[in-house]
Amino acid sequence: MYYPEMSKSELLSLKLDLENQYINFKEKDLNLNIARGKPSIEQINLSREMLDIIDSESSCVSENGLDCLNYGGIDGILEMKKIFSEILGIKQENIIVGGNSSLNMMFDTISCFMTSGNSTEKPWIEQKDIKFLCPCPGYDRHFSILEYFNIEPIIINMNEDGPDMDSVERLVHEDGSIKGIWCVPKYSNPQGYTYSDEVVRRFAKLHPKASDFRIFWDNAYAVHDLSETPTNLLNIMDECIKQGNEDLPIVFCSTSKITFPGAGVAALGASNNNINLLKKRYAVQTIGYDKVNQLRHAYFLKDYKNILKHMKKHREILKPKFDIVLKYLKENFNENKIASFTEPKGGYFVSVNVMNGCASRVVELCKNAGLILTNAGATFPKGKDKYNNNIRIAPSYPEKDELSLAMQLFCICVKLATIEKLLTS
Amino acid sequence: MYYPEMSKSELLSLKLDLENQYINFKEKDLNLNIARGKPSIEQINLSREMLDIIDSESSCVSENGLDCLNYGGIDGILEMKKIFSEILGIKQENIIVGGNSSLNMMFDTISCFMTSGNSTEKPWIEQKDIKFLCPCPGYDRHFSILEYFNIEPIIINMNEDGPDMDSVERLVHEDGSIKGIWCVPKYSNPQGYTYSDEVVRRFAKLHPKASDFRIFWDNAYAVHDLSETPTNLLNIMDECIKQGNEDLPIVFCSTSKITFPGAGVAALGASNNNINLLKKRYAVQTIGYDKVNQLRHAYFLKDYKNILKHMKKHREILKPKFDIVLKYLKENFNENKIASFTEPKGGYFVSVNVMNGCASRVVELCKNAGLILTNAGATFPKGKDKYNNNIRIAPSYPEKDELSLAMQLFCICVKLATIEKLLTS
Repeated sequence: MYYPEMSKSELLSLKLDLENQYINFKEKDLNLNIARGKPSIEQINLSREMLDIIDSESSCVSENGLDCLNYGGIDGILEMKKIFSEILGIKQENIIVGGNSSLNMMFDTISCFMTSGNSTEKPWIEQKDIKFLCPCPGYDRHFSILEYFNIEPIIINMNEDGPDMDSVERLVHEDGSIKGIWCVPKYSNPQGYTYSDEVVRRFAKLHPKASDFRIFWDNAYAVHDLSETPTNLLNIMDECIKQGNEDLPIVFCSTSKITFPGAGVAALGASNNNINLLKKRYAVQTIGYDKVNQLRHAYFLKDYKNILKHMKKHREILKPKFDIVLKYLKENFNENKIASFTEPKGGYFVSVNVMNGCASRVVELCKNAGLILTNAGATFPKGKDKYNNNIRIAPSYPEKDELSLAMQLFCICVKLATIEKLLTS
Repeated sequence: MYYPEMSKSELLSLKLDLENQYINFKEKDLNLNIARGKPSIEQINLSREMLDIIDSESSCVSENGLDCLNYGGIDGILEMKKIFSEILGIKQENIIVGGNSSLNMMFDTISCFMTSGNSTEKPWIEQKDIKFLCPCPGYDRHFSILEYFNIEPIIINMNEDGPDMDSVERLVHEDGSIKGIWCVPKYSNPQGYTYSDEVVRRFAKLHPKASDFRIFWDNAYAVHDLSETPTNLLNIMDECIKQGNEDLPIVFCSTSKITFPGAGVAALGASNNNINLLKKRYAVQTIGYDKVNQLRHAYFLKDYKNILKHMKKHREILKPKFDIVLKYLKENFNENKIASFTEPKGGYFVSVNVMNGCASRVVELCKNAGLILTNAGATFPKGKDKYNNNIRIAPSYPEKDELSLAMQLFCICVKLATIEKLLTS
């Protein structure tokens, strides 16, 4: 039954029942966490044999003759460039292979534009009061980078086919202080939405007022399908090249959720102009990233086809966990409609919308009973969800039985928070 | 005989002889390089067994329970903090362990002060026209960072006991636009000088006009002794703490020249205030550096005592190479005094001063005969050595017979360039 249509006494009696269930959970002394998109131990074990690939007997010389144990090669080894070229659909000459973190490459790219600018425009920091578009809900760490650099976020609505492109076009065409947009174009964080071909084409056709506007295309889940019929994402670089707009996108990805979150390899792909700008920085910033770990990855991952085979193993572990989350969400909310949720075909998250004003209370109730969720508001810039209704669920890390418990508790807390709200408003 | 005292005809006859020797070298079609402080293959092989230490069976869990294969831990694993704490003589709570490059940590630190400033001062970029002191000759990559950020370098003379502290004190006390100084305090690059206790104490007693002035203490050669009686460097942090000046130094080092130049581990040590400022940045910049490589290093290096044992093996390879360089320099220049040179007790370089105006010609002559040297001027900011007389020799990479050849050729080129200069002036 739809809660808002229930009488006060019905709500009170339901509340009593839920409170008893909640107390039962509290007594279990749980220590559960579905806050971060953290691969499970089982997933990490899928790549353990990578640790055997390079040993003291290995030559550690890359295809193009680079001694990976010694200095040199700021943009990465050829083998990894080829692999990322396949993943991103960008020519290998236009790839820079970095350290273990694509977030670090995004941060460095923004830092580069902040202090050095591109060839035609002043550094962003000198232009003052610059802005970034933030499709929301979105990835909290993207927003933290903006906050760190004092870049003003502008919230853009996310639809099932991607950001609201009418707003994006209008703002980017009108306002020269808008310098970038954060995109997680495939299996978006947190909804799991993939941008439609039409949306990608509209991105490629943008003619921003700011010539130093860039699309930060964080393709974090490029090969992270949960279904056997993966969603296809149109190649942003190809589309931009068709439009003579190749300087627009900077594309990022990493193997953090393919091999090891703590010891993967990251990369970016971009136009010649952007690559030259970034290489100029990297040549000053470092003598070169860890090429031994790059080689380890190249030998283990081999090529795109093999990566897809490897990702199938991840899917076999992840899919049942998403099924558990969705089972509980459907059972508990399909009828009463007090929460809506996405059903992703890939990525790491399920996005749940509860009744306006209830998200932070749900997170608090869960926490008090031993279940850590992503902070309410985290999916919005500065942690401020103006409707206080979005909650991100990350099913990957816990064991299945723990996840079931977590979801049972979560659903109880959503109901409780909703009733509390209805009774006081 | 001292060249400037020779007659023109004596010089001409000597030149003819040297030119014949030079042509003989040219005909050898050499391909030699003594430009960069790059460890040799033999040195790298000293650490190869580190590649066996972690394999698919390893737990990869750090002492404090962190799964090194997964996300987390932005400031590094406890094991490596302890090791760097011993190397740098700084409390482990005041250490951040990073990726594979200390240069990257220096760049990031300066980038942090550029855009964010510390708690009491505006970001450097907003203060405009800021300056750094550069003891010279010095390390080219330090100077490149200043160039990248448009920070004006001020050259400070290097004496055998460290930078000219009278100038440092005067400038730092008078000029609030001076924000930092680059120091390689032990076995300096390129002379191999170690700062005296007196110099370190004078650094610790500085009361800079700029409260955001920092000493960038690049302790790159902390354990890189060439002698069995290592030079002792006074602990800058201890001295600064005594003076209530603990925010002054930021200390850097890495294992690049202990284990693998291409896959080592870097760290910095600093006061609580500085660490907090930098951690705030790192928490936004990355989810964490490669902890598996940190663990690999911790298991291999074990502790300070074991590192010194390991460095003895490096010394056994490096010392004979420095001996070759010094043998040729002494044989060729001790009498005629047309070049002076340092005799380092550690580090990676020998600094040679030729006759004013001759360094670039020496480098050119060497290059034309197949020997690559560090560019003339590289040891000064913007690559400009106003006396054009300093040349850095890096003996580490070539085999000993190649190095002998290189030094023979080098000495011929120094003599030739000197005579050319004397004949035209």
